[in-house]
Amino acid sequence: MEIVVQKYGGSSLSTLEKLDTLGARIARRAPRNEKLVLVVSAMGSTTDQLIQLAKTLCPDPPARELDMLLTTGEQVSGALMAMALAKHGARAISFTGAQVGIRTSHHHTRARIEGISVERIERSLRAGQIAIVAGFQGVTEDDALTTLGRGGSDITAIALAVALKARRLEKCTDQDGVFTADPRIYPEAKTIPRLSYEEMLEMSHSGAKILHPRAVFFAWKFGVPILVRDSAVEGQGTLISEMEGNVEQAIIRAVTHDASIAKVTIFKVPDQPGIASRVFEELANKEISVDMIVQSTTVVDTNDISFTVKRPDLAATVEILDRLCREIPGAEVKADSTVGRVSLVGLGIRTETRVASRMFRVLAEKKINIQMIATSDVKITCVIPETQVQDAVKAICKQFGL
Amino acid sequence: MEIVVQKYGGSSLSTLEKLDTLGARIARRAPRNEKLVLVVSAMGSTTDQLIQLAKTLCPDPPARELDMLLTTGEQVSGALMAMALAKHGARAISFTGAQVGIRTSHHHTRARIEGISVERIERSLRAGQIAIVAGFQGVTEDDALTTLGRGGSDITAIALAVALKARRLEKCTDQDGVFTADPRIYPEAKTIPRLSYEEMLEMSHSGAKILHPRAVFFAWKFGVPILVRDSAVEGQGTLISEMEGNVEQAIIRAVTHDASIAKVTIFKVPDQPGIASRVFEELANKEISVDMIVQSTTVVDTNDISFTVKRPDLAATVEILDRLCREIPGAEVKADSTVGRVSLVGLGIRTETRVASRMFRVLAEKKINIQMIATSDVKITCVIPETQVQDAVKAICKQFGL
Repeated sequence: MEIVVQKYGGSSLSTLEKLDTLGARIARRAPRNEKLVLVVSAMGSTTDQLIQLAKTLCPDPPARELDMLLTTGEQVSGALMAMALAKHGARAISFTGAQVGIRTSHHHTRARIEGISVERIERSLRAGQIAIVAGFQGVTEDDALTTLGRGGSDITAIALAVALKARRLEKCTDQDGVFTADPRIYPEAKTIPRLSYEEMLEMSHSGAKILHPRAVFFAWKFGVPILVRDSAVEGQGTLISEMEGNVEQAIIRAVTHDASIAKVTIFKVPDQPGIASRVFEELANKEISVDMIVQSTTVVDTNDISFTVKRPDLAATVEILDRLCREIPGAEVKADSTVGRVSLVGLGIRTETRVASRMFRVLAEKKINIQMIATSDVKITCVIPETQVQDAVKAICKQFGL
Repeated sequence: MEIVVQKYGGSSLSTLEKLDTLGARIARRAPRNEKLVLVVSAMGSTTDQLIQLAKTLCPDPPARELDMLLTTGEQVSGALMAMALAKHGARAISFTGAQVGIRTSHHHTRARIEGISVERIERSLRAGQIAIVAGFQGVTEDDALTTLGRGGSDITAIALAVALKARRLEKCTDQDGVFTADPRIYPEAKTIPRLSYEEMLEMSHSGAKILHPRAVFFAWKFGVPILVRDSAVEGQGTLISEMEGNVEQAIIRAVTHDASIAKVTIFKVPDQPGIASRVFEELANKEISVDMIVQSTTVVDTNDISFTVKRPDLAATVEILDRLCREIPGAEVKADSTVGRVSLVGLGIRTETRVASRMFRVLAEKKINIQMIATSDVKITCVIPETQVQDAVKAICKQFGL
């Protein structure tokens, strides 16, 4: 049974008209030699509206109940998608995450998938039905409904693709593939036909919102190709897979950015083993994901540790650090929520030594002050003032001909 | 463990403000010596809106998917109710029907409850939580979500009250109890302090929409008292229970009506055993509930059978009858969707012989033509033209001093 998993995001499902058109498109495609599993997000901005509703009623809603509320969003779009397909003559059946046995951890609003039982879906596929699964949600051992956090529907889709040994995952969105830069900032941006998992992972981490980094990571780990394509028109899209052959040529793929991160620095951390691990363990316990981490020794025996977090996590981060610092004599915490990040991504960074210096020079010419630098095999990231992110993206794109 | 089940309808939950006020009221009451289980309907007209959404997308949506869609309504109000209680300091936890093991038949959109496992609810109650259950829904053996049809949340509430051996069921609504007549038609109508199950059952069947007849039937069968009361203010309400003592005095309780039913007549049915049973069996198979049935012999060897159904069921009813009549030589079907029903209810009807004749005289004086009559121990019902229902209610109320 050749299975293809397609993931449809909220903007592809934002109106009944779009659902109807999608239903017709998918139904037309159905007779092919592939079985379809569709993973759907909530319609349009439903999730945000539900969160708003909850917070209006109760400023600090219990996370378990927030999950009970939010999981309805994907259940609604799944049912409507099944109806749209039925209208156009395709046989489809929708499921909640719980119904297809997407077992998760108990961390409400940020749960992790721990296992999937694919029997129910496979039974539907064998019966000739298109299986529709509500994304973003699962169920704990104790039968409580959970959600997977932002981007959770991508995680659902890749986890299903892996569990079902799918031929590929198609991420169906409102643009035809992954672009060399955000076209709203750099209109000359182009679709990238092929990307390696590593490049896509680095791009996801550094602000390309097209795929959740955990989704890319799982796809890489289990070797599931991802095709990013437009849900409304047949285009070429971007294929993300293992790259073979002459990949070592100097390829610079794309510029990504995130204009809304926060930087945190702990000054004067004693140069003793265990302090840094304690800081990041406590943050991990709260499911706060830390991005770039830079440590430098300023004076003898103490370090400064800087890292970036998502802005919504800043308050919780500072609270944890303030508590820890009370136990570390002399340590101080400073937070800056006015920074952004710009990254250059490409396999060429591994081999082409002058990429970094060219990037720094461009920023210097634009009088953009670099506050932090981090590099990986395929990415160079600079933290810069939020207000200069757009200028930086444009300048770097021009410099590297993207 | 003394348990009270409270049922809140959609109009009590139609806005965040109402939910907030309710949350405060219930939280204040919580410390009493009773454990609370709340059964909630969908907010306001959510269910109708979801049906509208489905039918706009797909004129004939698959029933299974309609249930997937509709069950979200109660899940949302349950989660929000839990949040409202949390805000006011009460510990609450919300459940879907599936989570508390409300097992149903597989008849989508009209399922029947087949069993309830109360362990999960009892565990919450023992832990000091208020348990909130999404009404109107359940789950089949095969793990498909189902809904119980109109009034289904009442069924959920009474089924839970029975399964939990609750002290009573409180039906919390937007009026303080059951009235002698619809106050919108007859402003002098009063709250009835006490009613027998039989009277309430007859009233529910004949148009008093305050309780679903199946709910009253279950309450009667298992001896669970029902208190109908205003959800917003503390009033006396109406207590429905077994009536003891001098109940045989001539009591006329109330006038109920339903201005939107349909009458169906099959003419010239051969006077043979089995024909009527076949008609009503086929209707029952389609879960069409037939109300009044009147049969009369017109000429030798053939009968006319008349009965009433809910208007939304008329088309399906006529379709079934047309098919059956093709097999019965000479039989004809006629339908009238412009009729209504007015009923007089009270234990006194059993003993007081002149109640019926007084009712018919009142209608005659108002020149209202009676098309069908049916009587039970505690109710007399007349089918009359829809346009004269309001006049009939007022005239009967005046005649019997209600």
